[in-house]
Amino acid sequence: MTTVLISSQQDPIDLWRESLALEMPELEVRAESEIGDDPADRADIDYALVYWPPHGLIASLPNVKAVLSIAAGCDHILADPQLPPQLPIVRMVDDYLAAMMAEYAVYGVLHFHRDMHTYRQEQLASHWNRGWPLYTPETAVGILGLGAIGGDCAAKLGAMGFQVHGWSRRPKSLAGVTCHHGPAGLLEMAGQCRYLVCVLPLTPQTQGIINKDLINAMPRGGFIVNIARGGHQVDEDLLAALDSGQLGGIFLDVFNAEPLPAEHPYWQHNKVWMTPHIAGELMPRSCAKSVVANIRRIEAGEPVPHLLDKSEGY
Amino acid sequence: MTTVLISSQQDPIDLWRESLALEMPELEVRAESEIGDDPADRADIDYALVYWPPHGLIASLPNVKAVLSIAAGCDHILADPQLPPQLPIVRMVDDYLAAMMAEYAVYGVLHFHRDMHTYRQEQLASHWNRGWPLYTPETAVGILGLGAIGGDCAAKLGAMGFQVHGWSRRPKSLAGVTCHHGPAGLLEMAGQCRYLVCVLPLTPQTQGIINKDLINAMPRGGFIVNIARGGHQVDEDLLAALDSGQLGGIFLDVFNAEPLPAEHPYWQHNKVWMTPHIAGELMPRSCAKSVVANIRRIEAGEPVPHLLDKSEGY
Repeated sequence: MTTVLISSQQDPIDLWRESLALEMPELEVRAESEIGDDPADRADIDYALVYWPPHGLIASLPNVKAVLSIAAGCDHILADPQLPPQLPIVRMVDDYLAAMMAEYAVYGVLHFHRDMHTYRQEQLASHWNRGWPLYTPETAVGILGLGAIGGDCAAKLGAMGFQVHGWSRRPKSLAGVTCHHGPAGLLEMAGQCRYLVCVLPLTPQTQGIINKDLINAMPRGGFIVNIARGGHQVDEDLLAALDSGQLGGIFLDVFNAEPLPAEHPYWQHNKVWMTPHIAGELMPRSCAKSVVANIRRIEAGEPVPHLLDKSEGY
Repeated sequence: MTTVLISSQQDPIDLWRESLALEMPELEVRAESEIGDDPADRADIDYALVYWPPHGLIASLPNVKAVLSIAAGCDHILADPQLPPQLPIVRMVDDYLAAMMAEYAVYGVLHFHRDMHTYRQEQLASHWNRGWPLYTPETAVGILGLGAIGGDCAAKLGAMGFQVHGWSRRPKSLAGVTCHHGPAGLLEMAGQCRYLVCVLPLTPQTQGIINKDLINAMPRGGFIVNIARGGHQVDEDLLAALDSGQLGGIFLDVFNAEPLPAEHPYWQHNKVWMTPHIAGELMPRSCAKSVVANIRRIEAGEPVPHLLDKSEGY
């Protein structure tokens, strides 16, 4: 009998239970709330599947073979000062995250491209002014970030018929994508794109990259979709560009402060569309596949990919 | 010198002029308003590119070689009692229409699939309740209609990762699409689909096809996107299903009466999202390609595809 303990304040435990059962019916799944004072309960646990587990929880499991992270990063595990130092930690690597981000990118671009932002506001006023749409094959979208997520966004926006540009710090080459790089390449790309989509990682180099220089390089009346991190955007510059008409609208999933403060001007701004950091999630239905694959590998004594290298931190 | 006259109350004449110039710079383009009383003005015209032209206009052009329709159908030309009977009439056949419809289908499905309908209403109330999304690879979309438009919708929804079903009156087979047909197949498909998208032609057999039987066959809380014709939907049945919760929301581009009357309950219904019949347009930028190709064929004495067969009416 193999038993996994799930500890997370944020994840839907029932959905995890159901998803793990579909992949490995013989796996025993325990929620943290089901572990009582009896030491035998803790002795049963073979694996801990965790997100920000309480300090000491993992150390209290005498027979645990590995810690499985419910996140790409493992900072939430390493933060536990009582973590047994030799225990293997497995990172979460999930292909479906890129697909979710690409859904949002396609939706956000089409939202502005098909004038849905205008028609919705007109509907609420019970009167439409019918506009004339743009021709997609002559409309360019620029994607900031060309990793796994940016690549999937590019492929799907390309499949929808857009001209696709992409930007990365270092030179890259992707089929069907006009690639730009470096600081000059960023403004060069912005100058050609009605829509920009940000999926960059947040680093000291990308902090504040959505600022007035980038916005002013775009053709007037363009649109920005940010589904990366709030730290990429300079809120004052976005608001000023919306008010001047340099930007026609923005779609934001991320914010400099999350949750977004109730008094923030974004909430009631008529050119701002937004969501509460939902663009990409680690979905139990998808992640359960790699969790189970890793448990089976460890049980069979096989090597496990995506083991945390503690000296590197990833 | 070849000259075309454009006559339409609805089309953007400047966009037509610009689009024709890109395809055939040597073509002279005249708007109807530019034709004066001088008979020489009318004698110059080689082609008439028209939508609902004024009666007698075409008969007043002594040297016109063909009438080019700015619509798939030609009823708007045949309605002119003074139309010279032997003049060739060319229908508009444009691939881009299907791409536009597929953009709307993908947008409309993602709108509900990613809870954008809910997040927008919550934004207006300055407070979010973060939900948990559905897993796209296990979510089915059903497309009513499997012609050129339905096929493109199916391909693009499939590329986004959805399970795709399709329905047509007669049996069809499309790669990557679970195909259903006939009256029993319609309800069988509806029973498996969280989302239905209608792109059917309006015929006596499809009139009112979006009715309580279809809606009640769907899983509770599903969504419908209708971008075909208003006559496909039974408004009372849609409204009743929204109010009962059988439907979670609808996205409509078409209505039984257009323009939609100001007092219609759809305008202010919080589960209804809609647009003023903009899903598919004949876009000058795309259509100019086939208009110019046909002018070149006639000038070269070559056969023209899509000539109207007046005995068939299409």
